[in-house]
Amino acid sequence: MSSQTQPLTGIDLGVAGDLAAQLRVDSIRASTSAGSGHPTSSMSAADLLAVLVGRHLHYDWDNPRADHNDHLIFSKGHASPLLYSIYKAVGVVSDEELMTGYRRFGSRLEGHPTPVLPWVDVATGSLGQGLPDGVGVALAGRYLDRLPYRVWVLCGDSEMAEGSIWEALDKAGYYQLSNLTAIVDVNRLGQRGPTELEWDIADYKKRAEAFGARVLTIDGHDLSEIDEAFRSVAEDGSGQPTVVLARTIKGRGFSEVEDHAGWHGKPFPPDMAARAIEELGGERHLLVRGPLPADAAPGPAPAMPSAADQAHGAPQTPAPQPPAYSLGEKVATRKAYGDALAALGTDRPEVVALDGEVSNSTHADEFAKAYPGRYFEMFIAEQQMVAAAVGLSARHYVPFASTFAAFFSRAYDFIRMAAISQANIRLSGSHAGVEIGADGPSQMALEDLAMMRAVHGATVLYPSDATSTAALVRAMADRPGISYLRTTRGAYPVLYDSAEAFPVGGSKVLRSGPDDAVTLIGAGVTLHACLAAADRLAGEGIQARVIDLYSVTPIDTETLVTAVAATSGRLVVAEDHYPAGGLGSAVADALLEAGPQPLHLAHLCVRELPGSGSSTELLAAAGLDAEHITAAARELVKA
Amino acid sequence: MSSQTQPLTGIDLGVAGDLAAQLRVDSIRASTSAGSGHPTSSMSAADLLAVLVGRHLHYDWDNPRADHNDHLIFSKGHASPLLYSIYKAVGVVSDEELMTGYRRFGSRLEGHPTPVLPWVDVATGSLGQGLPDGVGVALAGRYLDRLPYRVWVLCGDSEMAEGSIWEALDKAGYYQLSNLTAIVDVNRLGQRGPTELEWDIADYKKRAEAFGARVLTIDGHDLSEIDEAFRSVAEDGSGQPTVVLARTIKGRGFSEVEDHAGWHGKPFPPDMAARAIEELGGERHLLVRGPLPADAAPGPAPAMPSAADQAHGAPQTPAPQPPAYSLGEKVATRKAYGDALAALGTDRPEVVALDGEVSNSTHADEFAKAYPGRYFEMFIAEQQMVAAAVGLSARHYVPFASTFAAFFSRAYDFIRMAAISQANIRLSGSHAGVEIGADGPSQMALEDLAMMRAVHGATVLYPSDATSTAALVRAMADRPGISYLRTTRGAYPVLYDSAEAFPVGGSKVLRSGPDDAVTLIGAGVTLHACLAAADRLAGEGIQARVIDLYSVTPIDTETLVTAVAATSGRLVVAEDHYPAGGLGSAVADALLEAGPQPLHLAHLCVRELPGSGSSTELLAAAGLDAEHITAAARELVKA
Repeated sequence: MSSQTQPLTGIDLGVAGDLAAQLRVDSIRASTSAGSGHPTSSMSAADLLAVLVGRHLHYDWDNPRADHNDHLIFSKGHASPLLYSIYKAVGVVSDEELMTGYRRFGSRLEGHPTPVLPWVDVATGSLGQGLPDGVGVALAGRYLDRLPYRVWVLCGDSEMAEGSIWEALDKAGYYQLSNLTAIVDVNRLGQRGPTELEWDIADYKKRAEAFGARVLTIDGHDLSEIDEAFRSVAEDGSGQPTVVLARTIKGRGFSEVEDHAGWHGKPFPPDMAARAIEELGGERHLLVRGPLPADAAPGPAPAMPSAADQAHGAPQTPAPQPPAYSLGEKVATRKAYGDALAALGTDRPEVVALDGEVSNSTHADEFAKAYPGRYFEMFIAEQQMVAAAVGLSARHYVPFASTFAAFFSRAYDFIRMAAISQANIRLSGSHAGVEIGADGPSQMALEDLAMMRAVHGATVLYPSDATSTAALVRAMADRPGISYLRTTRGAYPVLYDSAEAFPVGGSKVLRSGPDDAVTLIGAGVTLHACLAAADRLAGEGIQARVIDLYSVTPIDTETLVTAVAATSGRLVVAEDHYPAGGLGSAVADALLEAGPQPLHLAHLCVRELPGSGSSTELLAAAGLDAEHITAAARELVKA
Repeated sequence: MSSQTQPLTGIDLGVAGDLAAQLRVDSIRASTSAGSGHPTSSMSAADLLAVLVGRHLHYDWDNPRADHNDHLIFSKGHASPLLYSIYKAVGVVSDEELMTGYRRFGSRLEGHPTPVLPWVDVATGSLGQGLPDGVGVALAGRYLDRLPYRVWVLCGDSEMAEGSIWEALDKAGYYQLSNLTAIVDVNRLGQRGPTELEWDIADYKKRAEAFGARVLTIDGHDLSEIDEAFRSVAEDGSGQPTVVLARTIKGRGFSEVEDHAGWHGKPFPPDMAARAIEELGGERHLLVRGPLPADAAPGPAPAMPSAADQAHGAPQTPAPQPPAYSLGEKVATRKAYGDALAALGTDRPEVVALDGEVSNSTHADEFAKAYPGRYFEMFIAEQQMVAAAVGLSARHYVPFASTFAAFFSRAYDFIRMAAISQANIRLSGSHAGVEIGADGPSQMALEDLAMMRAVHGATVLYPSDATSTAALVRAMADRPGISYLRTTRGAYPVLYDSAEAFPVGGSKVLRSGPDDAVTLIGAGVTLHACLAAADRLAGEGIQARVIDLYSVTPIDTETLVTAVAATSGRLVVAEDHYPAGGLGSAVADALLEAGPQPLHLAHLCVRELPGSGSSTELLAAAGLDAEHITAAARELVKA
């Protein structure tokens, strides 16, 4: 068939059937041409997507970032051939690009969708993340944008085994996200064989309903049933998210592979592809557009659900202002985080906050009390919290998400994927290290700096006082990518005047002189011990330079190199973190990259599994107090 | 009241009521004495635990590791005052230890339970983990030990928001773990305020039933209802796990705080504690023991559920033997993992395997086919997979769990906690780095070495050929703690004869000579590029030493130091990983710890966000091919 030049609009189900066949054929052609990809997982969902894109998705394909557009997220990102075939069908990707670009080096048509494509909100491919991300977009739609756009998420049945899917449905129900529709492509077959529930649609239905969704069960290859289901979404007044459970057949449309195990993630060889295309009626080049979004003014702000709201109620305080702390005053950096975040909320309406049911510990509650309409209580669901931040970022909000630093490890896959999503999100982890004391090791983040430094493009900050914390929170708001702030449980003296600047990538030299014999490097709680150690050393006649390395990544290599030169390469690095990947590694990596230098490095860190105790006891036991730092420095100087 | 010397056994509900009051009083006393802890969260569950421990938990307190013992796991680990008060009530911890040890430095009565106590199977305190761990213990009980012991898990209501809880209930239902009982203490209040579902027991019930549990709803302060619920567990023939939803009151027993927000995680000041103890009838020192476990021979092995079993069926192959590979033969290290694991299954009946629905990619399916009764398909639920491994380790099995290396990031909190649990688990991550090619960044582990190196006591291995992989898999079986093996998707030449030894902590010097001018360090796929680069360099008259750093942690510092001395400090480290925390950092950390040396380090790694492409294209684009390694070495030598 020949190509059209004008897209068909307002298509009927007959054309949708042709479109579905085209999407199947193009999914096969693209994956066979690439020698890689998932045609059968695309074919099972082709009817669903043909009806959705042709008749229900309100989307201006020429303006992918238009505020009123619906959102289409492929949580089953491996069905990328289907998604890209849709892009061809709506005319934003050419057939040539599809055939020569898919999965090829340098192409934007990657194996799994990423936002290098303007129509993709979030990267998917790690299963169970697209729906949680969609919850974030839907939160923005309902509570912040207050626009009638819908979020449509295509889920695979295998990914329903991920707990994160249930965190997402739980929050979607709780926050009454009637603008969210999950379409589950229940094709019965996973990668290595049958899925856990196979075609037990009734079981899926019970689960989704129990988690607060309105559930529709359909034959995912019956265009009328599909159409009716999607139509009902627009008409539904239940205030619930919708889950469409579609019974489908993997490889649908090509009899040789339909419902056959062993064809997951495998392109058809060219001869099979030819037979499949013939069975599907040959190549087509329909150009189709669905409905455009209607223009609408933002609606009124809906109330937050009661349990989330109960902690704060209507804003009662005067608008928070940027904090100022007195030198020497003891303030916990987590408190400064809350102060600064609340003040940021005053200046910047796009700033939003999320927390994992510990806002009275992270001090995110200060923001929640001041700006309850921009605060999302995520309860104890850290994966969903980070995913919601990613979804909010896709709608151009400036999310700050907080919990205990240790518990961001729960969401590491989501943080890793957020970097691929090019999301701009800010994470604040409180209660880091053995400093937390009596709660013991389960609550102590001792791997978080390593974890966050390894994330692509991440900024990692670890301030030691309230003034620098507040400054860095402000800087994070404008920082692209993933930013991580590590805060401390206990209150320590304010070291800096509020006029001081704390550029990301900088550091502060707190003690220095012409006779410096050794450099002490700390961040967070250990900086205070470094200062005390410098005093002790001075008493012994040893002058020590002290560096506050509040910006762990990017790191101030120049100041480190200068210190190495000034102190004959003698460095003591002290960090409340396990040995690998934290402050010590950051210093080591930076200095080795800077070129050959004499380096006598003493690395003080947490080497044994800690238990409970007081901060003082545990820091001393880990060798992170002034006494141990003093001893390490003395030894370097005397060596 | 005075102390008994002989424990009461076969106690009635009247004594159980006294015991519950004692547990409340002791929870208050312990936390007030420590100035820290969670009395109110203990008080809500005291009636539940008094009846359980006094009348239903079959446990020989004098032989905590007896095979027939029931297992008691506090998934709400912050209720440690209650757990430790139980230990006092059964006479294994003295009142003095409870009052002077709780949360103190050096004490075994840590803020959250850890296995430094012989009655604790797994560390808890990161919520939503105790129940998944309990699933692992129950899997061992039903399928491996085949003993009638029961696993009782006390859950908090706040943690029901964690997706991992639903992964656990899903797998408990799927694997018919009728030996598992989750007791949910629905006390309505979380840390910062009301929980998401508050006292909506009906909603919890719908969810738990939908996930396959038999659900009982009770008043958690009515001793008869509690007793009847626990009694029914022993009599139930449904083959389902049981969830007991107990409506409770936080702070129950002390009218000043009952059901009051604002008392989470706060000990009572001494005056309040005195009033509370008075209201509860004063101090008691009952000594109580519940029933002992019955001796029983292991039962017959039950069949695995169908979808899990379908992929392999009954063992059909001859018992797998240790693999041997020919030099130069191209074999993927992931294939060697499967070969070696299956062979290990032949030698070692305690070896078990788990996989996250990708066993045909990780090659764990070789084990599954040979030993289906010792293989647990976890579908796409990586958190539960790691937790099940921890639970199996608590029962002294030797679990190997596999998935794509990238997806272990999903379970990082569980891996971190596994270290605190002193679990011995082995993780195998396949498809590492840009080497995987067309699937794109969502499937590429590029942070995994950093993540795993940061885990306390972890062993991190990254072999480059099949022979060394097989040897290291064998070594992992005997390795305590957390071991991680990184395998590669593509097939590369076998480098080593099967007689070669690969000690953990070792390395291999593959090229060396008296004129070495530079050292090339690789592991996994980059080692092959280092060897090719050495050939190219030799063609240019530059002799290069080549080190296979298959043991990333622990690392062979001696060989590195020797190479530094031999090649004037010129090192090229090439790794298919992001810059921070991986092979380059491991080398840097080791050399800086070894003392001052001249170091001219070129660190080749993945610095940009990759896309799709072939392995060759992506490795070249990241600067990890022979050409880039050659150029980096040449530059070091000429500098």
